[in-house]
Amino acid sequence: MAVYTEVSADDINAFVADYDLGAVLTFKGIAEGVENSNYLLQTEKGNFILTLYEKRVRADDLPFFIGLMDHLAAKGINSPEPVHDRSGVALKELCGRPAAIVTFLQGISLKSPSPRQTGDVGKALAELHLAAADYTGKRANALGHDGWRDLAEKCGAEADDIAPGLADLIAREIAFLDANWPKGLPGGVIHADLFPDNVFFLGDKVSGLIDFYFACNDLWAYDLAICLNAWCFETDGAFNVTKARRMLEGYNTVRPMGPGEVDGLPILCRAAALRFLLTRTYDWLNQIEGALVKPHNPIPFLERLRFHQTVETASAYGLETVGPQ
Amino acid sequence: MAVYTEVSADDINAFVADYDLGAVLTFKGIAEGVENSNYLLQTEKGNFILTLYEKRVRADDLPFFIGLMDHLAAKGINSPEPVHDRSGVALKELCGRPAAIVTFLQGISLKSPSPRQTGDVGKALAELHLAAADYTGKRANALGHDGWRDLAEKCGAEADDIAPGLADLIAREIAFLDANWPKGLPGGVIHADLFPDNVFFLGDKVSGLIDFYFACNDLWAYDLAICLNAWCFETDGAFNVTKARRMLEGYNTVRPMGPGEVDGLPILCRAAALRFLLTRTYDWLNQIEGALVKPHNPIPFLERLRFHQTVETASAYGLETVGPQ
Repeated sequence: MAVYTEVSADDINAFVADYDLGAVLTFKGIAEGVENSNYLLQTEKGNFILTLYEKRVRADDLPFFIGLMDHLAAKGINSPEPVHDRSGVALKELCGRPAAIVTFLQGISLKSPSPRQTGDVGKALAELHLAAADYTGKRANALGHDGWRDLAEKCGAEADDIAPGLADLIAREIAFLDANWPKGLPGGVIHADLFPDNVFFLGDKVSGLIDFYFACNDLWAYDLAICLNAWCFETDGAFNVTKARRMLEGYNTVRPMGPGEVDGLPILCRAAALRFLLTRTYDWLNQIEGALVKPHNPIPFLERLRFHQTVETASAYGLETVGPQ
Repeated sequence: MAVYTEVSADDINAFVADYDLGAVLTFKGIAEGVENSNYLLQTEKGNFILTLYEKRVRADDLPFFIGLMDHLAAKGINSPEPVHDRSGVALKELCGRPAAIVTFLQGISLKSPSPRQTGDVGKALAELHLAAADYTGKRANALGHDGWRDLAEKCGAEADDIAPGLADLIAREIAFLDANWPKGLPGGVIHADLFPDNVFFLGDKVSGLIDFYFACNDLWAYDLAICLNAWCFETDGAFNVTKARRMLEGYNTVRPMGPGEVDGLPILCRAAALRFLLTRTYDWLNQIEGALVKPHNPIPFLERLRFHQTVETASAYGLETVGPQ
C-alpha cells in the first residue's frame, strides 16, 4: 500500500484541466503498487488511475513504459491505457513527480488462484508476448541474468543472516546459470513481474494486467518461468503441478513453446527464483527505517530455488515432453 | 492510509453475495481513514465503500454509528448510507471483523479550503445537527469534558517531553474549563471530528460528510468549536478570521446560535483545542513500533489553545455580538 506524494484538490483539478476528462468527481489514494503513488480518479468521463512515479522508477525508463502501454492497449490487451492530454502528451508532471493518467480496469486480484484461473494467466501472458513483439521500444533487464552477480555482491556475506550458507548458495547458483544458460531462445518485451497482485480477474477470466514498470527485453520463456514461480506454489511452499500444467497449456494454446524453451524451462525457473531471492534479500538487508512498505520475506524464493534445483526436465512442471528432441 | 485486514477475492465475493448488489467488479484498498480498513467496492449496482472495523473502534458502539448513518441518509444528508443485505442487516462480519458496506460519495477533500468552502462546511454542520436531532441512539462522548482529566493523567508528566510546561498547562486548562463550563446549552448528536479529511467537496459545495465514528451526544456549539479549530487555522498556525466568520455565518443561516452559545464559544474553542491536544499528546507518547500511521503532531493544537486563551468574546471569531445579551 502506498501513497508517497500528497496531491491537493487544487493540484489535481489543475492537472486534469489539461485533458478532455471533464470535472474531477473523486480523488482517493489507493493501496496498490509499492513503488509509486496511485490514486483513483473519477471524472465526468469515467474512472481512471493517476500514478505519480516515485524515485525507485527511473525517469528515463518512463517513455518506454508509457509507449508500451499505448502499444498494448492498441493491440487489444486488457492493460491500462495511457490517457493523452489535449496536446497529445501522456507522461506529464504533478507535484514535482512524473505522472500519468491511465484507464481503470475492472477485476479483482486473487490470493489463491485456482488451476483454471492460473491457466488463463498463461494464456494472457502469451497474448501479451505476441502483442508486444512489434513494440519498437527497448529496455535492458536491469534485474536479468547480467545483473545478478552485481546484486549478489551488494548483498554480500550478510545474506547468511537470513539463512546460513545463503551467500554461498547464491554464488554457486549464479556460476551454474552462467555455465548452463540456454542459448538461442526467442524473446521480446516481457512483463517480468506478473505476480497475482498484478492480474485482475472477473470470475475465471483475466480482465486486466497491470504494473508494467519492470517490463524489459528478455526471453519469453523466462517470463513464463517467473509466472510459474509466482502462481504455482502454495502458501505452505508446496509446488502445485496442476496449476503449472494449466499455466503451460494456456500459454501453449496461444504461443507454442519451441523445443529449446521446453528444455530450458528448469534452468529458467531456477533463474527466476534466484532473481526474486536476490532482490528480496537485498531489500531485507537494506530496510529503510519508517518505510511504508515492509520488504517481502526472501525465504519462500530460497525454497522455490531449492525445488527447481531438483527438477531435471520440464515434465516436472506438467509439460508433455515426448521423446528426444 | 490504512488497510489493516487483508480480504481475499473469495471472501469478498461470498460477502457481497448476501446483498442485492450483483457481482463484484472491483475491490481495492483505499488510503482513507486511520482507524479502520476501507475498500473501494464496485459491483454491478455501482460504487460502494466496504469498511472493516479495527480494534480501536468499540464493537458495542457500531450499532449507534450504523443507525445514525441510516438516519442521516433518510433525512437527505450527503453521508454514507449503510447498505442492508437481503435479511435487512447492515452490520455484518468479514474476516473476523465487524464490517459494513456503505454508499460511495463523490467529491474531494481539501487541504486548503477557501472562506466560501469553509462557509459551506458551517452550513452542512448545522444541517447535520438538525437532521440528527431526532435520532434516538445515544452515545456518551468518551473524549468530551468528562474524559479529559483521565486522559491528562494518562499522559502524565511526560507531556513535558513534547513542550516544556505542557503537563501543567493542561492541568490548569482543565481546572479553568471545569470552573467556567457554559451551562444550559443545547445539544444532540454531534460529528465530533469534522476535519477537512472528512468532508468532500464538488466545487465550492460540500458533497459529502464521512467518518461518523466519533459521533456522540454533546453540545452543538462544541461541534462548531471543533470545526473552527479544524478549518480556520492556516498551516503556519495563523487564525483566519475570514474563514471563521464565513463558517459561523453558514452555520447560523441554518440553525441560529442562541446567546448562550455565542457567549460560550471562546470557552468551547479552548475545550476543542484541548481535546485534540490531549489525544495527540497521548498518541505521540504512546507510539506503536511499526504502526502504519504516524501520529499527528500535538503542537498545532497547543498553539490553537494559546490563541483561544487570548479571546474574550465571540467577536474575535467574526461573530456579530450586538450589545449586552
